[in-house]
Amino acid sequence: MPRQAYVNGRYVPHREAAVHIEDRGYQFADGVYEVVPVYNGILVDEDLHLDRLDRSLSELRIAEPMSRPALKLVSRELMRRNGLSNGFLYMQVTRGVAPRDHKFPKDAKPALVMTTRQTKPHSQQLLDEGLKVITVPDQRWDRCDIKSVSLLPNILGKQAAVEAGAYEAWQVDREGKVTEGTSTNAWIVTKEGTLVTRPAQSGILRGITRQVVIELAAREGIGFEERPFSVEEAKTAREAFITAASTIVMPVVRIDDTTVANGHPGAISRALREKFHEVSELEAL
Amino acid sequence: MPRQAYVNGRYVPHREAAVHIEDRGYQFADGVYEVVPVYNGILVDEDLHLDRLDRSLSELRIAEPMSRPALKLVSRELMRRNGLSNGFLYMQVTRGVAPRDHKFPKDAKPALVMTTRQTKPHSQQLLDEGLKVITVPDQRWDRCDIKSVSLLPNILGKQAAVEAGAYEAWQVDREGKVTEGTSTNAWIVTKEGTLVTRPAQSGILRGITRQVVIELAAREGIGFEERPFSVEEAKTAREAFITAASTIVMPVVRIDDTTVANGHPGAISRALREKFHEVSELEAL
Repeated sequence: MPRQAYVNGRYVPHREAAVHIEDRGYQFADGVYEVVPVYNGILVDEDLHLDRLDRSLSELRIAEPMSRPALKLVSRELMRRNGLSNGFLYMQVTRGVAPRDHKFPKDAKPALVMTTRQTKPHSQQLLDEGLKVITVPDQRWDRCDIKSVSLLPNILGKQAAVEAGAYEAWQVDREGKVTEGTSTNAWIVTKEGTLVTRPAQSGILRGITRQVVIELAAREGIGFEERPFSVEEAKTAREAFITAASTIVMPVVRIDDTTVANGHPGAISRALREKFHEVSELEAL
Repeated sequence: MPRQAYVNGRYVPHREAAVHIEDRGYQFADGVYEVVPVYNGILVDEDLHLDRLDRSLSELRIAEPMSRPALKLVSRELMRRNGLSNGFLYMQVTRGVAPRDHKFPKDAKPALVMTTRQTKPHSQQLLDEGLKVITVPDQRWDRCDIKSVSLLPNILGKQAAVEAGAYEAWQVDREGKVTEGTSTNAWIVTKEGTLVTRPAQSGILRGITRQVVIELAAREGIGFEERPFSVEEAKTAREAFITAASTIVMPVVRIDDTTVANGHPGAISRALREKFHEVSELEAL
């Protein structure tokens, strides 16, 4: 059976899944999304993702397309239809379809799209060797705390990374401080062994995995500071890594043309990755 | 016959016009657009709009979906099918459909959508009385020179304007200088009678109507300075107005809670509006 997608009340073959050309997501980037990892059939940290979805919708004053129990039901039905056990559930909510006009439409109904994707685990080689990031100016709008589909600067950053043979681009603010990656949060471990990541205020997205790693660090007794760090500090750090729902903890061993520490994944990054499942909802498995 | 839209090679009923849920315009705001005014069946300043479309595509490294002659042919065929004589042609080009991944897809074909809309002329009352604008912080990304569909901050600004009983929101940079409206350019006339608008560098979009008004001012011998102006300067200006392809020149008589000059449209704004057609391509009519 072909893969299906959920689009505004119907389960349809993924190939034919479509939205109207005047859906405001298409014409104005007037929508938000979440990507929920699925591990052994479990939607990992589902409620944290749905909490963040609610917040994004609320900040943009888009109504919730359905109740949370209904959303969970649809998620599970789509996973069942697609036989999804490991991968991701993608959900996108836009303000709906209306004749093109900047101001909010009076009577549009929020549009909801869900898809799933089966994925393979990250290659052990990448984990063993660590990855490279480049740095680029942060060109994004001021409300990156909202998980909107306004992702044009993110894709330009990611593309620059790929062309430089890197995995990710760290975006850098006017003060030379790293904000976050294009789809990941950025972390370092200082020479003194303190974990550092930027505060989740309006400059960055409040990553779910970021939050879990903070809890994990506390549990493991690892010193933690929530503050911005500069590119220079990162290049001379003891360790660096990125986090995201899709990548969990991934060690960074090169920033631009600078090798981080001895060029191998650090002990704290490795430990956080290994213990991540003990703190996230995966503990139950 | 129902209104039609052009979508990726086909003319389809507007109601059924759809794009795939993995069109990158929908998931990443990875696309650009143009709105070309149509006046008595003529696409006004069409080549200027198509030049700007080419530039937007080129900046984002999206391939042109078809040659310019083909684009013009499709535009005219859609107008013919819809019997469009006065209104707008909307065209949107995205990077195309591909499995969701930030980096540019290898083999996606650019997607092209075109719609038309019949409109009535602006009410004479609005022109006679002038309109109100509010000011809001400019929250947009750094590449507003690209006419992308990343319009979320613009719609939030426009909505704030509507809720304040205003027509438009002027966006203001960190230095307190007006950048532009959410879908219009911002202008003032100083006490000395000099026309002022912000330079079209990376902070704002290079408006087509803006360009035509600059030419018109030169022809009419009106002094002109291309420089940023502050909200305070605008509030104490002799005149203020906005320009856009859809509105041409529209007088502004109130900025936030401050009445501009005597609260009536100024002489230079009115003259520019009246003479606009002599300089734009409409001259031929």
